[in-house]
Amino acid sequence: MKEFKLIYDIKSRITVKDENLIQGIGDDCAVIKESGGNLLITTDAFYENTHFKRKYFTPMQIGAKAAAINISDICAMGGIPRYMFVNIGVPKKDSGNYAGLIMRGILAYAENYGIVLAGGDTIKSDKVFISITLIGRADGGFLLRSGARAGDRIFVTGRLGSAAAGLRILEKKGNKKIKDNETELVKKFISPQPKFEYGRLLLMSKCVSSCMDLSDGLISDISRICEESGAGALIYSDILPVSPSLAAYAAKTGTTAAEYALYGGEDYELLFTVPENKVKKFAKFMAGYGVAFFQAGIITSKKGVYVKRGSKTVKETYSKIWNHF
Amino acid sequence: MKEFKLIYDIKSRITVKDENLIQGIGDDCAVIKESGGNLLITTDAFYENTHFKRKYFTPMQIGAKAAAINISDICAMGGIPRYMFVNIGVPKKDSGNYAGLIMRGILAYAENYGIVLAGGDTIKSDKVFISITLIGRADGGFLLRSGARAGDRIFVTGRLGSAAAGLRILEKKGNKKIKDNETELVKKFISPQPKFEYGRLLLMSKCVSSCMDLSDGLISDISRICEESGAGALIYSDILPVSPSLAAYAAKTGTTAAEYALYGGEDYELLFTVPENKVKKFAKFMAGYGVAFFQAGIITSKKGVYVKRGSKTVKETYSKIWNHF
Repeated sequence: MKEFKLIYDIKSRITVKDENLIQGIGDDCAVIKESGGNLLITTDAFYENTHFKRKYFTPMQIGAKAAAINISDICAMGGIPRYMFVNIGVPKKDSGNYAGLIMRGILAYAENYGIVLAGGDTIKSDKVFISITLIGRADGGFLLRSGARAGDRIFVTGRLGSAAAGLRILEKKGNKKIKDNETELVKKFISPQPKFEYGRLLLMSKCVSSCMDLSDGLISDISRICEESGAGALIYSDILPVSPSLAAYAAKTGTTAAEYALYGGEDYELLFTVPENKVKKFAKFMAGYGVAFFQAGIITSKKGVYVKRGSKTVKETYSKIWNHF
Repeated sequence: MKEFKLIYDIKSRITVKDENLIQGIGDDCAVIKESGGNLLITTDAFYENTHFKRKYFTPMQIGAKAAAINISDICAMGGIPRYMFVNIGVPKKDSGNYAGLIMRGILAYAENYGIVLAGGDTIKSDKVFISITLIGRADGGFLLRSGARAGDRIFVTGRLGSAAAGLRILEKKGNKKIKDNETELVKKFISPQPKFEYGRLLLMSKCVSSCMDLSDGLISDISRICEESGAGALIYSDILPVSPSLAAYAAKTGTTAAEYALYGGEDYELLFTVPENKVKKFAKFMAGYGVAFFQAGIITSKKGVYVKRGSKTVKETYSKIWNHF
């Protein structure tokens, strides 16, 4: 969903420097150094027909998902979301209650995380859009994308590919006629749940070398960690965690669950790396909290992202990543 | 331009409290208390055909104005703008250079103020839009809308109404056939200049009881200061500062410059109040910096906004404020 080229282009043009800006463009959040503790800032736009179709979402669900996407970015750095700023655009014919319901969806969702709505505006627009900026606190450090090194193990916090399958089900059937075992997949797409506790635990473990949230799909997102870390990755397609519902749906549609897990976006699980010599300590730490995590591959010194399916290993190309779905 | 009803509606629904959020919804910026100094945060959306038409603006001018609007909000609280986050939406047929030029317009403008671009994204949209969040520092305090008291004098930092006249000229003539004396008015609309030094001086003077920037027009904006301060206002229409070009244009179009000054938005001058007993001290302070300011009226204990034209005083109504242009 995210388009990185322009923002990277512009990054090279920035001439103003700021010693308190520890991390600018290039990670889930910017990091600003404050004497009382660092602040994390993320911003994301959520636009009708680009990111969601109104026929699949109630206005409160639109608001909740827009909030979730931003909350997930703070969680991916191990932070605590605090202050939310919201701009909403709604067509004139919808004004009044529609914008109000989106805002209530945002507010209800954000308050679950203890977030305060601190500012924003509503305007008239042609299509519905929501642009959210979220400020969080980074107590005791933060996780970046840039720390992965060759030999580090790649992990994810949960099952992959369900949201992409959910979207495909909606595109084929609409909201009606969805079978029981497909409801789980659709729900993953409509109502993602950011991994707040996971982000905090990964940070507390002091074993994690890099982390980001999975918004665009495993292959696309691991390529960003590789880019920021100056490394490559090998993904083990056959061991990726997937739900039984996804496996059943994939088989019926003539593909495999692994294809959804590799290329499907919007799962909002966390993708992270742990140095080989800390894996044991990390596993013990996570077991102490009764929290599961799953292998996905290994960081390599050789640049590029490779996928191992059975005995065959194939290099991923950018055009393939972007055009798969 | 700003639509306040929904955001005020939602304000009453917020249940999460945060002791570090000194000012939430209801002013030019939110204020977050930090041990190293307070932070100011503002966010605004700038949407095609709602806030600008592409036929009047180059993409770099669109970017510069979107940046200016946000910078003005930080200036209105006496702050120093620091970190900018930008979401840009552009139709698919325009992607590539159009979004890039908007971004360069934002960057060039923001860097004049020492602002760092710290994050953001570009997405596909039906209409061009820009949503900016700007974080500033409030060293040595900040100015709020809520401090005006009965008897305080109302001032503005510069000539009013030019931007609204500039918009009207563009709407009637397009970019072509604009006469020399009208260029000044059009430029005020296309390229507003936030009053950064003024905001800092107003804060330093320690004489200013309330302040905001003029985005929606004098009558509309003073009514917000009154609402936040629990007071009313009397505006002296005949003494409002206007440019000779505006006076000439207004006469030719069968109205007065004062009408533009009262109801025309987007001047981005500062509107502020000074208690009666501090006016002398304030004038001396400002004279020391060689900086002018202009009388606009007086704060009253009687609620509502009144306008004095010659010997006649008339109460403003909300429908009149919103529908004048």
